[in-house]
Amino acid sequence: MIERIAILGTGLLGTSVGLALRTAGYRGSIVGWNRGAEGAQAALALGAIDSVAADAVQAARESQVVVLAVPIYATLDLMEKLAGVLGPDHLVTDVGSTKAQITAAAARLFNTPERAAFLPGHPMAGKERGGAALADAELFRGTVWLFTDDPECKRSPHSAELVKGWREWVVAMGAKTIDLDPARHDELVAWVSHLPQFVATALSALLQEEVGDAPELKDVGGRALREMTRLGASPFSMWRDIAYTNTEAVQAALLALEQGLAHLRENLRTPELRDEFEKANRFRRE
Amino acid sequence: MIERIAILGTGLLGTSVGLALRTAGYRGSIVGWNRGAEGAQAALALGAIDSVAADAVQAARESQVVVLAVPIYATLDLMEKLAGVLGPDHLVTDVGSTKAQITAAAARLFNTPERAAFLPGHPMAGKERGGAALADAELFRGTVWLFTDDPECKRSPHSAELVKGWREWVVAMGAKTIDLDPARHDELVAWVSHLPQFVATALSALLQEEVGDAPELKDVGGRALREMTRLGASPFSMWRDIAYTNTEAVQAALLALEQGLAHLRENLRTPELRDEFEKANRFRRE
Repeated sequence: MIERIAILGTGLLGTSVGLALRTAGYRGSIVGWNRGAEGAQAALALGAIDSVAADAVQAARESQVVVLAVPIYATLDLMEKLAGVLGPDHLVTDVGSTKAQITAAAARLFNTPERAAFLPGHPMAGKERGGAALADAELFRGTVWLFTDDPECKRSPHSAELVKGWREWVVAMGAKTIDLDPARHDELVAWVSHLPQFVATALSALLQEEVGDAPELKDVGGRALREMTRLGASPFSMWRDIAYTNTEAVQAALLALEQGLAHLRENLRTPELRDEFEKANRFRRE
Repeated sequence: MIERIAILGTGLLGTSVGLALRTAGYRGSIVGWNRGAEGAQAALALGAIDSVAADAVQAARESQVVVLAVPIYATLDLMEKLAGVLGPDHLVTDVGSTKAQITAAAARLFNTPERAAFLPGHPMAGKERGGAALADAELFRGTVWLFTDDPECKRSPHSAELVKGWREWVVAMGAKTIDLDPARHDELVAWVSHLPQFVATALSALLQEEVGDAPELKDVGGRALREMTRLGASPFSMWRDIAYTNTEAVQAALLALEQGLAHLRENLRTPELRDEFEKANRFRRE
C-alpha cells in the first residue's frame, strides 16, 4: 500500500533505511533529499534511493511516507515546514534520539483528521561515524525501534493505515518495536544510550590528555580500551542536539555515575568493592 | 632450548599460554598445576598442558620455565615459596596486572647468579570471564605483552638465555613486547586498563539499579550499551588484587574521570561540549 517514500536526510540512518527497505522487499519508489548534495548522490549510488530531490518539501508532497533522518533541531524545522503543506494522505515519521520535543511538536502540528499523521520513531541503531558511505542494509536487524506515538490521537482512517503500514516495514527491516511514553523514552535513553556515549566521550578525552602524546601506548589497552572508547569518535554535530533536548535526564545520569565512581574510588580496599562488582555482574547476567 | 615449562594456574590466561605455545610450534613438555583440580583437568582436556601436577613447587622444580598465571597475591605467595628451591637453571615469569610489588619481590628473591631468574610480565589480553574453558590459542595475537624487567640485574649467563628464550616465545605467540619501568607500568595501566574496567563496573552497577528490573529495556541500548558494559561481567576475585596493589594510581584516574564527567554535565549546553567531543575524536583518530 505504501508506494512512494521520501527520505529527508541521507546520512548513515537515512541511507540505511533505504537499503533496509529494499532488502525487506519494498518495491515502491524512494526519493532522497540531503542538505549537502554529495550525501544524496552517495545514497543514490548505493541504491538506497531511486532519485535525488532538489527540494525537501516538494519531495515530501509527492510521497506517502516521509522519513525525517536529520538531527533533532533540523527535524523540528522540517516539521514546521511540512505541517501546512501535507494532508491526511501523508505520514511523516522520524528517527530522532530524543522524543519529548518532537512528540509535542507532532501533537501541535500533525495528527488531526485534516493533517498528515506523524509517528515519532527512534531506531536504537547507529555507528560512531556518520555518512551514507557507512550505511548498512542490516543496521536495524536485531535492534529495537522505539515509538512514542500518542495512542489517543485522532487520525483519519487513511492516516491510521499509513502508520500501520510503516510499522510493518520497520519490523520487516528486522527491528523489534517497543512503544513508550515520550517522557519515559527520554529518561530511559538517557540511561542506556546517552550516558554510555557521554562516558565514552569523557574517557576518550581524558585519555587523549594522559596518553595522547604516546600513540604506541594506546595499543596497550587492547580490546577493552578500544570498546570503551569506540563511541569517542561520535560527532559533536549529532550529540549537541541530544544534549540540548534531554539535558535534565542526562545530567541526572551523569551525576549518578560520578557518585558511583567516587564510591568505587573510596572503596578500592573495602568489601564494598565486592558488592559493586556483584551488582555489575548481575546486570550482565540477567 | 626451553624444553620443560610449568604453568602454575590454568585459568583463562594460563591455559591460553599453553595453547598459544603449541600453536607457535613449542614441542617441549608443559605441566600444569591449578589450585582447583578441575581447572587443570580442563586445560589437559584442551591440550594446553601434557600432564597435571599435584604440587606446584615440585612442578616448578622439574621445569626450566615457570609461568605464574594466578592472581597477584597468589603470585607473590608462590614467589616466596619458589625462590629458595629453584636455582639459575630456572626462569620464573608471571602475567600479573600490576607490577610494582611483583618486580620488587623479584629483586628481593630472584635474579642473583645463584638464584632463578624472574621476568615480570603482563600480557594485555583477557576476557571478561575467566576459566580454562574460555581459553584461546589466539588470545595474545596482535596484543601487547609488557615486561618490567630490571635491565641491571645480575643473572647467570644461563638465566639470561632463558629470559631471551621466553621473550622469543612471547613474540611467537603473536604479541608485541614493550619494556617499561614498573612504576610507569602501573601508572599507565591504571589509565588504559584499570580505569576502563572500573568505569564499566560502575556503569553496569548503576544500570542494574536503574533498569535491572526491566530486562526487556536492556535490549534498547543495543551494541553501544553491550560494549560499554561487557567488562561489567569481570570477576571481583581478579580485580580485588589489582585494586589493592595499584590503589593510588587507580584513585587518581577515577577522580580525573569524575571531574571529566562533571565538566560535561555542567556544559551540556555550552561550547565546552564541542571541545570535549573534539578531544575524544582525536583520541580515536590518532
